[in-house]
Amino acid sequence: MTLQKLVNQIRKKKSFLCVGLDVDLTKVPSHLLQTEDPIFEFNKAIINATHSFAVAYKPNTAFYEAYGVKGWQSLAKTIAYINENHPDIFTIADAKRGDIGNTSAMYAKAFFNDLQFDSVTVAPYMGKDSVEPFLAFEDKITILLALTSNAGAFDFQTQMVNNEELYKKVLQTSLTWENSQNLMYVVGATKAEYLKEIRKIVPNHFLLVPGVGAQGGSLDEVCEYGLNADNGLLINSSRGIIYASNGTDFAEKSREEAQKLQQQMEKWVR
Amino acid sequence: MTLQKLVNQIRKKKSFLCVGLDVDLTKVPSHLLQTEDPIFEFNKAIINATHSFAVAYKPNTAFYEAYGVKGWQSLAKTIAYINENHPDIFTIADAKRGDIGNTSAMYAKAFFNDLQFDSVTVAPYMGKDSVEPFLAFEDKITILLALTSNAGAFDFQTQMVNNEELYKKVLQTSLTWENSQNLMYVVGATKAEYLKEIRKIVPNHFLLVPGVGAQGGSLDEVCEYGLNADNGLLINSSRGIIYASNGTDFAEKSREEAQKLQQQMEKWVR
Repeated sequence: MTLQKLVNQIRKKKSFLCVGLDVDLTKVPSHLLQTEDPIFEFNKAIINATHSFAVAYKPNTAFYEAYGVKGWQSLAKTIAYINENHPDIFTIADAKRGDIGNTSAMYAKAFFNDLQFDSVTVAPYMGKDSVEPFLAFEDKITILLALTSNAGAFDFQTQMVNNEELYKKVLQTSLTWENSQNLMYVVGATKAEYLKEIRKIVPNHFLLVPGVGAQGGSLDEVCEYGLNADNGLLINSSRGIIYASNGTDFAEKSREEAQKLQQQMEKWVR
Repeated sequence: MTLQKLVNQIRKKKSFLCVGLDVDLTKVPSHLLQTEDPIFEFNKAIINATHSFAVAYKPNTAFYEAYGVKGWQSLAKTIAYINENHPDIFTIADAKRGDIGNTSAMYAKAFFNDLQFDSVTVAPYMGKDSVEPFLAFEDKITILLALTSNAGAFDFQTQMVNNEELYKKVLQTSLTWENSQNLMYVVGATKAEYLKEIRKIVPNHFLLVPGVGAQGGSLDEVCEYGLNADNGLLINSSRGIIYASNGTDFAEKSREEAQKLQQQMEKWVR
C-alpha cells in the first residue's frame, strides 16, 4: 500500500485509529474457546466490528508466537483475512525485529512476502545495515522504534549522546539511510511533550503512537503536537478496544470503543 | 539447563563451539529439497554430524519465519529433536526480541515454555522492563545484545553516552536488573580488542560471540581477551560449518569444519 492511500483512508474515515490485535487467550470470551481457532475467530469478529472506524490493524507477533505453530497459523489467517476483505486497511506486523543484514532480509521476507503485511516494526540498536534490508522493499513501510511508551525507555533512549538524546540520534541517523522515505517511527503517547521536538527532526514522516488508553497517553495532546499536513499519525489502542467486554457482546463493545476514539479524532483530521 | 551443566559440557568436550542453524533453502543440498521438511532434515543431519564437537545450537528465527507456518514447524521440530536426543546441549533461540513488559512476557513464554529453548537473545533498546520478563524465568538464560558484529554497530552502540560507549552503559545497567545472574551477552568477534574492556564490566558472565568465520573474527584473539575461569565463552559459527559443502557429503564436511574449530578451542579450555 502507498502512503497516499493511507492518507486518503484517514480523510475518508476521519480517523487515524490503529487497532492492536494482541490476543491473549486468557482474556478472550470463553464461548470462543470451543472453536478450532479462537484467536482467529476473535480477530475476525473484532475486525468486522471495528473496520469502519480504523485505518490500520496491528497484531503484535509475541501474542501469536506464544502459542507456537498454531499461533503463527492464527497470525497468517488474520492477515490474509484483512488483505482479502479490507484491502484498503494498512497492516502492521508489530514484531520489533532487527539483525545483521542477510538475517534482516529474511525477516523482511517473512513479513512482507510470506505474510503480506504492509509494514513491520524494527528495532534500531544494530544500526543501518540491520534496517536497510527492510527499507529495500520500496512498496512497504518500515516502522523504526524511536521513543517507546514504557518505563525502560528512560534507560537508554533518553540518555544523552553528544548533547542530544539517543532517540533523536536514531531519528536523525535513520534519515540518512537508503529509502528513508519508507520509514515511520514508533513514538510513545505517554510522552506527548516530546512530539514537538520529534516533529522538528521528522516533520513529514508518519508516527505510530502506542500508549493511548491502557498505557495512559492523551489523544488530544498527541494530535496537538504530532499532526502534520498528511495527518502523519497512527494512534494505536489495543486492550481498550479488544477487551472492552469479555462476554458474547465483545465485538459490539469493541465497535463502541473504536467509534468513541474515531469521534475524538474526527475534529483533528486534516 | 543450569550454567554449571554448560560449563561441565565445555570441559568434557573441550569445546565452546556453538553451531548456528541458519538454514536458507537456496543453500541446502538439492537432494534434500524432495523431502517433506528439508529444513528439519538438514538440521537433523548437521546436528547428528557435529554434536560431539559443539556445546550449543543456535537457530536464528528469521530463517524459519521466512518460510511462514512451515518454517515455524521446522523450528519446533528442530528444538524438540535436540532436546530429545541431546539434552546436554545448550540451545539458543537467536530471536533478538524485546517489547513492553506484558508483551516480552509472551515472547518469553514462546521460547522458554512453548519451544523449550534454554535461552533467547534479546535487544536492549526498550530497557529494563522489556528484559526482566525474560530474566524472571530463573532456570533460563537471557542473552542481551551488547556489541554486535555488523557495521551498523557503530551507528549507536559505540556512541558516547556520558563519557562511555552505549554498549558499556547497556552492560552496566543490565547488571542492576533483577536476576541479572541469568544474563549472557552478545559480543561480536570482529571487535576482539573490545573484549578486554567488556571483561572489566562483566568478568563472570558468559559471552556469545558471533562473527568467527564468515564474519571474519579471530578465534585466538577472542579466547585471549574473552575467557574467564568458567571459560565464559560460546563462539558461534554458522555458514562456515553448515554450508561447508552443498553436495551429498554436506553433513560429513560440516563435521570436519566443526572438528577443526573444536581443535583450535581445545588448548584454550580451562
